[in-house]
Amino acid sequence: MKTIKDSVHDHIEVVGVANDLLDTHAVQRLRHITQLGTARLVYPSANHTRFEHSLGVYHLAREALTNLGIEGVQAERVRAAALLHDIGHSPYSHTIEELIHRRTGKYHDDVHDLLADTEVGDILRDHDLDPDTIAGLIAGEGELGQVVSGELDVDRMDYLVRDAHHTGVPYGTIDHERLTHELTFFDGKLVLAEGNVQTAESLLVARALMNPTVYNHHVTRISKSMLQQASERLLDAPDIDAEQLRRMDDHDLLVALRTNPETAELARRLSDRDLYKRAVWAEMVDVSDDIIDADHETIREYEDDIAADAGVDSEHVTLDVPSRPKMTESSSRVVVNGEIRPLAKQSTLVRALQQVQRDQWRLGVYTPAETTEAVGHAAERVLGLETDGALVSDIRTGVRTTLTDFEADEGDKE
Amino acid sequence: MKTIKDSVHDHIEVVGVANDLLDTHAVQRLRHITQLGTARLVYPSANHTRFEHSLGVYHLAREALTNLGIEGVQAERVRAAALLHDIGHSPYSHTIEELIHRRTGKYHDDVHDLLADTEVGDILRDHDLDPDTIAGLIAGEGELGQVVSGELDVDRMDYLVRDAHHTGVPYGTIDHERLTHELTFFDGKLVLAEGNVQTAESLLVARALMNPTVYNHHVTRISKSMLQQASERLLDAPDIDAEQLRRMDDHDLLVALRTNPETAELARRLSDRDLYKRAVWAEMVDVSDDIIDADHETIREYEDDIAADAGVDSEHVTLDVPSRPKMTESSSRVVVNGEIRPLAKQSTLVRALQQVQRDQWRLGVYTPAETTEAVGHAAERVLGLETDGALVSDIRTGVRTTLTDFEADEGDKE
Amino acid sequence: MKTIKDSVHDHIEVVGVANDLLDTHAVQRLRHITQLGTARLVYPSANHTRFEHSLGVYHLAREALTNLGIEGVQAERVRAAALLHDIGHSPYSHTIEELIHRRTGKYHDDVHDLLADTEVGDILRDHDLDPDTIAGLIAGEGELGQVVSGELDVDRMDYLVRDAHHTGVPYGTIDHERLTHELTFFDGKLVLAEGNVQTAESLLVARALMNPTVYNHHVTRISKSMLQQASERLLDAPDIDAEQLRRMDDHDLLVALRTNPETAELARRLSDRDLYKRAVWAEMVDVSDDIIDADHETIREYEDDIAADAGVDSEHVTLDVPSRPKMTESSSRVVVNGEIRPLAKQSTLVRALQQVQRDQWRLGVYTPAETTEAVGHAAERVLGLETDGALVSDIRTGVRTTLTDFEADEGDKE
Amino acid sequence: MKTIKDSVHDHIEVVGVANDLLDTHAVQRLRHITQLGTARLVYPSANHTRFEHSLGVYHLAREALTNLGIEGVQAERVRAAALLHDIGHSPYSHTIEELIHRRTGKYHDDVHDLLADTEVGDILRDHDLDPDTIAGLIAGEGELGQVVSGELDVDRMDYLVRDAHHTGVPYGTIDHERLTHELTFFDGKLVLAEGNVQTAESLLVARALMNPTVYNHHVTRISKSMLQQASERLLDAPDIDAEQLRRMDDHDLLVALRTNPETAELARRLSDRDLYKRAVWAEMVDVSDDIIDADHETIREYEDDIAADAGVDSEHVTLDVPSRPKMTESSSRVVVNGEIRPLAKQSTLVRALQQVQRDQWRLGVYTPAETTEAVGHAAERVLGLETDGALVSDIRTGVRTTLTDFEADEGDKE
Repeated sequence: MKTIKDSVHDHIEVVGVANDLLDTHAVQRLRHITQLGTARLVYPSANHTRFEHSLGVYHLAREALTNLGIEGVQAERVRAAALLHDIGHSPYSHTIEELIHRRTGKYHDDVHDLLADTEVGDILRDHDLDPDTIAGLIAGEGELGQVVSGELDVDRMDYLVRDAHHTGVPYGTIDHERLTHELTFFDGKLVLAEGNVQTAESLLVARALMNPTVYNHHVTRISKSMLQQASERLLDAPDIDAEQLRRMDDHDLLVALRTNPETAELARRLSDRDLYKRAVWAEMVDVSDDIIDADHETIREYEDDIAADAGVDSEHVTLDVPSRPKMTESSSRVVVNGEIRPLAKQSTLVRALQQVQRDQWRLGVYTPAETTEAVGHAAERVLGLETDGALVSDIRTGVRTTLTDFEADEGDKE
Repeated sequence: MKTIKDSVHDHIEVVGVANDLLDTHAVQRLRHITQLGTARLVYPSANHTRFEHSLGVYHLAREALTNLGIEGVQAERVRAAALLHDIGHSPYSHTIEELIHRRTGKYHDDVHDLLADTEVGDILRDHDLDPDTIAGLIAGEGELGQVVSGELDVDRMDYLVRDAHHTGVPYGTIDHERLTHELTFFDGKLVLAEGNVQTAESLLVARALMNPTVYNHHVTRISKSMLQQASERLLDAPDIDAEQLRRMDDHDLLVALRTNPETAELARRLSDRDLYKRAVWAEMVDVSDDIIDADHETIREYEDDIAADAGVDSEHVTLDVPSRPKMTESSSRVVVNGEIRPLAKQSTLVRALQQVQRDQWRLGVYTPAETTEAVGHAAERVLGLETDGALVSDIRTGVRTTLTDFEADEGDKE
Repeated sequence: MKTIKDSVHDHIEVVGVANDLLDTHAVQRLRHITQLGTARLVYPSANHTRFEHSLGVYHLAREALTNLGIEGVQAERVRAAALLHDIGHSPYSHTIEELIHRRTGKYHDDVHDLLADTEVGDILRDHDLDPDTIAGLIAGEGELGQVVSGELDVDRMDYLVRDAHHTGVPYGTIDHERLTHELTFFDGKLVLAEGNVQTAESLLVARALMNPTVYNHHVTRISKSMLQQASERLLDAPDIDAEQLRRMDDHDLLVALRTNPETAELARRLSDRDLYKRAVWAEMVDVSDDIIDADHETIREYEDDIAADAGVDSEHVTLDVPSRPKMTESSSRVVVNGEIRPLAKQSTLVRALQQVQRDQWRLGVYTPAETTEAVGHAAERVLGLETDGALVSDIRTGVRTTLTDFEADEGDKE
Repeated sequence: MKTIKDSVHDHIEVVGVANDLLDTHAVQRLRHITQLGTARLVYPSANHTRFEHSLGVYHLAREALTNLGIEGVQAERVRAAALLHDIGHSPYSHTIEELIHRRTGKYHDDVHDLLADTEVGDILRDHDLDPDTIAGLIAGEGELGQVVSGELDVDRMDYLVRDAHHTGVPYGTIDHERLTHELTFFDGKLVLAEGNVQTAESLLVARALMNPTVYNHHVTRISKSMLQQASERLLDAPDIDAEQLRRMDDHDLLVALRTNPETAELARRLSDRDLYKRAVWAEMVDVSDDIIDADHETIREYEDDIAADAGVDSEHVTLDVPSRPKMTESSSRVVVNGEIRPLAKQSTLVRALQQVQRDQWRLGVYTPAETTEAVGHAAERVLGLETDGALVSDIRTGVRTTLTDFEADEGDKE
């Protein structure tokens, strides 16, 4: 048994197969992938990694399994899945995931391969655990897969608490001991036991407050957008492909971007937090479906058109169109009067939070500070955005809409 | 200057008139009045006092005034009001306030008298501060009174954070530094500056989550109801009147209840947490307006009728009908696009929270464990409550509806 | 099983006999006895009670037992002892313990009686637990008694962390998870396992820093001395005896002191923090053994002589002579290279901390502010204290010697 | 003014010249240099950077200056120095500093150059601040330089608190508000005001407990030793020199080590925490002065001799001989009875802590797990270490001497 000191859960005990898995390259690599990607450009303290998060998820899985009364090989499988759940991550966490999927054509089989074909697979088999079963649990399959990946999984419990701790933002503080304690199975579904409607609501509230403050903070989004553009350009170079990119860690990617002449300037901007600014920041409610549903190629064309219209270089325009907001947590289930009910049906508050998410849905066009004016007007024309009425202030003056716009307040003022 | 160590704000510096006020009986008395009254029967760690809270409010007022750029005698007045804002409290904080008001016939002039006629008044006058002005600020009068008592006052900022710290419940965690930093005056109103809709929402969320978990937890309400009944009986004795009761502290009141034969049993029950249970716990939506709007005398009559119907002693029945839920904080104001807007208008989330409050509105009838059955049925008859359909489970089986029913889980199970 | 929310350990699960014991008057009474007695006059937030501390000790005992691999009835006994370990406490914790022992002539049999003759005994017997065995464990008897009461017991682990949390003083922060995790039995002694010399040292350091800052802060000592004098006078009245006093809680004692004319003024001073000041504060190194070894009667005579010499009323002088400093923790044992060693032998640091304790040993004479001059000189004469050389500054000018003299800084300046 | 959210100090306000300095490459580069270097291989959460630390030092400097009553251009200089104090750091903080000094022949002039010749110098001059003066303050010159760099500087206050927060180790918790509050100048020296002997002691205690637990943890030392060896080999390659190395950040260095064939294996070991083990871990008290005073070349010769003697490749042996322990903080000064006294003279505890440091002084020889036996015996012969008596266990069995050997417990067991 190994005991590891953690800044969130204090002491984490590592037992069984996890002890061996911990020393693999696949798991140690997570030390070199930050949890929040570019959000640390907003919150300078948020340098925590996927490694400590994976340990945290492992720890909460252990607690949840004990409370659920699950033991033996079943528990060992879930614990292994918890520790390994992030090993398929590309550098900078979710930032360039979509790009890699698009370029490799692979979406789901990556974790299966990683588990089957590496040292990790050998260790699992040595402990009589089947890599495919573990991969299934990581994908949320089966009853027990819900503990690792579902609406009420220990993954989100850990990251909400951990992200709050490291950013210094108080809003993610949830009662994770209560949550893991009240999980129960009901007709094969992982639900919160009777009397926990508000326990469930509090998880949703934390999520809803962390979104604009941290995860979708406009500076997080701008820098993410720049990193995606840079990574795309990197893959256009002949000496690197998407499979290689996927296996890098944050250090590799940042240095690759710095040394490639096509991406060096973007890398410098990201390193020195010399970011693009918002030329447009528009409510999605009035945006045409052509834009919302645009595929990658179309987005690139819009960017080129905007750049041409504004008379700027096309690398100086990024168009950021997030997909429709959803809150996975809102489909979690609670027991009320002996019946399972979907939380969103049961709770006025949760329905309001869903609406709040939709209200915060924003399209962004980003460009260097000196070209925001030109690019803003060009984007309005190219994208057909309204420029009068209530919307105009949003589009052109960048009304701040986030809870804690701290570091960004000045650095990002338009 | 004095520096006081505080478990919430770390070091609190006390300057000017506050130094002298601190040593008065009126302020020191607050050491002996707990902040949360009977909620500490649910949360054993919640033994914090009005004294430390008053220091905290003083501290936040100082910070807010600095940020607002208010100095000199104006600031000194507000700081004095912040430190003194709770000196009119009766023992057990708000629990027996209404009773004292009813019996003394005085509602608003108490703080004025306390400030004018005691050592506190002398000290204020020595510092060229007018007691009546300070009393006005405590009542929220004038522009600066809003800092001490209003929708966005430092009072609620301190108690939400402090109550969360001492109960161990995470939900009250607000970003009070951000809040005091973003306060500003706009057309004479204290509002949150541009870009703080979500800062305001987070305060509301904290309040909405703390209500069922702490402030209106059913064990808090049951014990409060028992304490009110005991205090009422105490005042029926010839040797004590409401004016005396008002000046007591928690020690005096508890010992008075213990030594009076009419109240000794209730005092024992409260001391030993041997509480009444819920005979009825009913949604208020289906309750007749006669009950909702009943005055004190009528409530007493209902209790007597229920007791008679159930064949129990009338001291073994308490009827607890809270008034219509409101959230003061929801009328706070924010600046959006250069205009003041009421938060509830601006925010989907706040409107949902108002609805949540209304959904949680419950009527309770409490009685010793052995008579819940008899009293429950009697109450249904006397109050004309529905006993079939969805409501019945609520009335008779006491579905738990609170976030953290912890200590109560077992002790209070029906 | 019951779950209780605690501000220090978060969720505390209560199982087995503890569930029943929790509801007894003997345990619930601890809600009404503050943990730190008069130290809350220095730290306004330090209002925590023996009840929450007892739950904390129970919780840590459970963890330690699990780590030690102790189960079944043996574990149930220790858990019961942990929960009950403080039920013999008189009001204001240790403050008036000596007085009660002296007046009742009973030192050790109190807990035995309480366990045997009350509802607590019935519950223990119902669970097939022998009250005398539990009393023995509380007294630290036997191998397992060391977990509850010894140099490395869970009692001190809880109070150091809890007192630090509630005072806001950081120095008591120990790694209690590590400590309970590393406990082991070796030749029948409870010791820290190999590799934990510094784990043990850190406990001693915490203790050594908390002593002057909290437990022996001069304001704590002054108010304790005043409370002892008042309690002594109370027992001189015909209507109360030491047995009754012992069974009171803090509320009872404070109100008894307020209502007795002989003690009302001292009670007012304690309630309003209008405390005596130091007339003498002298290093004990130069004090005669006659004073150090003086019994209670002799101390009273010294006080009378000082008062007479100074021409003040005898109730206005208290003489406070603490016994020789010892640090129980310094006799804890650690395993080094496979052998048990006493910590003080092994550790340079621990020997230094013992010396530090001796250096901080101080005699105090306290009196109202207006008579410090007269009483100080009288005490020098009566007690034969040196008044020149290095000592004089200590005696007469009250050099501050504590880490965080915060609230006291001004209120107590001579 | 800019407000930045910090996980330690909550909100940090950045004013004046610091606003412009913040956006320079020299300061932003610190985002990419971890504070603790290789200690994060022991504490997975310890990923904090020199950037957030520099902001913290800036924040505490502001507080200290306010308390010292220093304003205007003098304060602006100190604040600039505080923010800039770490810009001369090479990658991995102090790990490879000595190597760079040796290879460049420059020890002290680096910060001067950085301040004078870069964008930073331009900004300082624009604000009428002289770069040389700022460099002097960073070096601790003059009265005010002591605030930034001295025995009681704000640098160490921030890092003790921050390192404790991020490692999860409680021992670094100091009362930094008290410390910055009690700083004062006395005869041109920065000292702690009267009554703060124990405030000063608590800083020393924190330092003394953090040393073995974090800063000199044997896993920290092993990995540091490996990184130094790898960096030295990197500089032996023709394509990189020490000036370039100095300007790298952590990403650059790690990737450079990974891509150079001579260092790729060491880089892999460091990345995957597949570290060397201790072949020797010996008390320095019995080690010859030839070894203790050996220069770099001699150490390399010892390594080669040990490798040859053991029959292993020379890159598989590192010899780690730390210089004599000193505690800078122990020469801090306090005011006692109106005179300045050196803390070590005044305090029994501080002298004990100095002794503790000396007792913990250890020489290490590290090698891959499979060669510890051979290399251990070879090292004993080559270095002439005693192999009998008490020392032998230390040398060969690696008695653990650290407070929280957590993650290392298993991974590093010999």
